[in-house]
Amino acid sequence: MEVRQVVGSVVCTQRIPGLAHVDLRLVQDGQGRQAVATDPVGARPGDWVFLVSGSAARHAMGNADILTDLTVGGVIDQWEPA
Amino acid sequence: MEVRQVVGSVVCTQRIPGLAHVDLRLVQDGQGRQAVATDPVGARPGDWVFLVSGSAARHAMGNADILTDLTVGGVIDQWEPA
Amino acid sequence: MEVRQVVGSVVCTQRIPGLAHVDLRLVQDGQGRQAVATDPVGARPGDWVFLVSGSAARHAMGNADILTDLTVGGVIDQWEPA
Amino acid sequence: MEVRQVVGSVVCTQRIPGLAHVDLRLVQDGQGRQAVATDPVGARPGDWVFLVSGSAARHAMGNADILTDLTVGGVIDQWEPA
Amino acid sequence: MEVRQVVGSVVCTQRIPGLAHVDLRLVQDGQGRQAVATDPVGARPGDWVFLVSGSAARHAMGNADILTDLTVGGVIDQWEPA
Repeated sequence: MEVRQVVGSVVCTQRIPGLAHVDLRLVQDGQGRQAVATDPVGARPGDWVFLVSGSAARHAMGNADILTDLTVGGVIDQWEPA
Repeated sequence: MEVRQVVGSVVCTQRIPGLAHVDLRLVQDGQGRQAVATDPVGARPGDWVFLVSGSAARHAMGNADILTDLTVGGVIDQWEPA
Repeated sequence: MEVRQVVGSVVCTQRIPGLAHVDLRLVQDGQGRQAVATDPVGARPGDWVFLVSGSAARHAMGNADILTDLTVGGVIDQWEPA
Repeated sequence: MEVRQVVGSVVCTQRIPGLAHVDLRLVQDGQGRQAVATDPVGARPGDWVFLVSGSAARHAMGNADILTDLTVGGVIDQWEPA
Repeated sequence: MEVRQVVGSVVCTQRIPGLAHVDLRLVQDGQGRQAVATDPVGARPGDWVFLVSGSAARHAMGNADILTDLTVGGVIDQWEPA
């Protein structure tokens, strides 16, 4: 699962029915690349999260009819180094 | 879901039956890499969109028989920064 | 769907049963990276094509028993710019 | 299957139900990129592991209800070079 | 399907049940990045191979219970250039 930081939300009125009424987070990796993720966890801007991709992203929404390929799986509190 | 900009459409007469009669958009990321996506939303050149990949891309077309791996999920109106 | 150019074919006598009797194209992206794709469309060397990946690649062969992860989806005639 | 090194564990109290009670490892590739993986094998910090991705990652947990896309498949003891 | 060279085998005693008794090849791409693949074809060190990824990798083993995401699909004898 990829590690990224939440940097904001996306306003999007023209979208597919399979994403109606879903909050969309803008997430950024360490190289500044941005992606859009669905979020059942309630992550806030500034949070570092890990993301579930592929078909697991749909199930992670608690509703496999939500047509996402990237879902926030959890908010990272801290690393425990080796 | 990846973020890309629509830069045009693709003319393609020789294609698989699973993509017959489907509009194909040319989409480009921030590094200039291009890909082809199916579009049920009606995005226009210049629009920034996010894209659903994998098996969700088929369902996002409203018809899982359409054999795409990349579908426009929505047109981005604006970001709301952190 | 990725955009690549057909640069040749692959000779391969030792292969899995799920790819027996299938033509294999060598396709290259703009950075020179090469991959092998199955081709139900009949693309020729020099053609620019877009490629269907993942489970859709199997269905795009018209036979989901063909164990590919990359299939030529269409030959690009031209771009229509924005 | 990707090769990465385990560099620690992730503390995460706010997570999706599909990952409740699962240990999460922080794994790093040769370029320093980090990801989060589920671990049914018991890898320790410093171990080099290979990772199963996609839907196989769920099955590799021995429970396909665990909503991961990356699972430790094995701890590498050594390479046998050519 | 990605093109890589077999550079050796992997010794791994601590692994998931879904990979028990399977030979694991170490494969390297043109940039020197290494991955681990299952091999039903019998590729030898030095061979250039193409690799089937995703759910097709499991089927390519002839047994979908083998939890791999990367399987040798064939040994490349030669390219036929354009």
